[in-house]
Amino acid sequence: MERVPILKIGDILLVSIQVDMSDQTAVALQEDLAERIVATGCHGVIIDITALDIVDSFVGRMLSTIASISRVLDAETVVVGMRPAVAITLVELGLSLNGIRTALNVERGMELIAADRDQEYDEFDHSSDAEPTASP
Amino acid sequence: MERVPILKIGDILLVSIQVDMSDQTAVALQEDLAERIVATGCHGVIIDITALDIVDSFVGRMLSTIASISRVLDAETVVVGMRPAVAITLVELGLSLNGIRTALNVERGMELIAADRDQEYDEFDHSSDAEPTASP
Repeated sequence: MERVPILKIGDILLVSIQVDMSDQTAVALQEDLAERIVATGCHGVIIDITALDIVDSFVGRMLSTIASISRVLDAETVVVGMRPAVAITLVELGLSLNGIRTALNVERGMELIAADRDQEYDEFDHSSDAEPTASP
Repeated sequence: MERVPILKIGDILLVSIQVDMSDQTAVALQEDLAERIVATGCHGVIIDITALDIVDSFVGRMLSTIASISRVLDAETVVVGMRPAVAITLVELGLSLNGIRTALNVERGMELIAADRDQEYDEFDHSSDAEPTASP
């Protein structure tokens, strides 16, 4: 079985999906990624899908699951590198990738995660300074 | 034909090889990479081979060619993520990956390229200050 490599770059784990995902590969990727998030304490996961010609409901569900797993482990997931044709097909298929954030490329994905992180710290600072407010 | 995606991260182009390389894929990767180096002006190329179970003479030659092409385009190439078993097999096969620099992982590869860059600038500064010396 092929395993999708996970690369650590600073505070981010980068996954570039290039092979056709089977059930097994998808489950292995989810497990590996969860383990790496816990082991490294990374706060961002970037999934690059430049190499994918099509994102069907199976891949869409896999991306959603990865995003959900990462979220409970305190990491943001951003999907990057989607081809124009893939975006068109996704919408035509009625798949909207709910709960998945996207960015144009890896660099923008990194900026997005960094900006989110800053905002969270700001909110944390404010909430510890002032009286407790309803969380957003 | 599958194309290996090339990801730009700052001053570096990152290539993660996950598929079996055919002649065609290898040539396409070399062309794509050369074009991207020129288009982006990046000074480093990192090739991740975490996913490769074996590096044979064909892949070894491809890595050498990529390194040579990058060099004439003023970019350093570093191969990262080699598995222990791959390193052992390489040596047993008598392939020493001449002219290819390696690092343990992407982060160390990035540090290596950054350090090289700094050194080059330093040398440039010195050579313009003092009288010309034999180049190293």
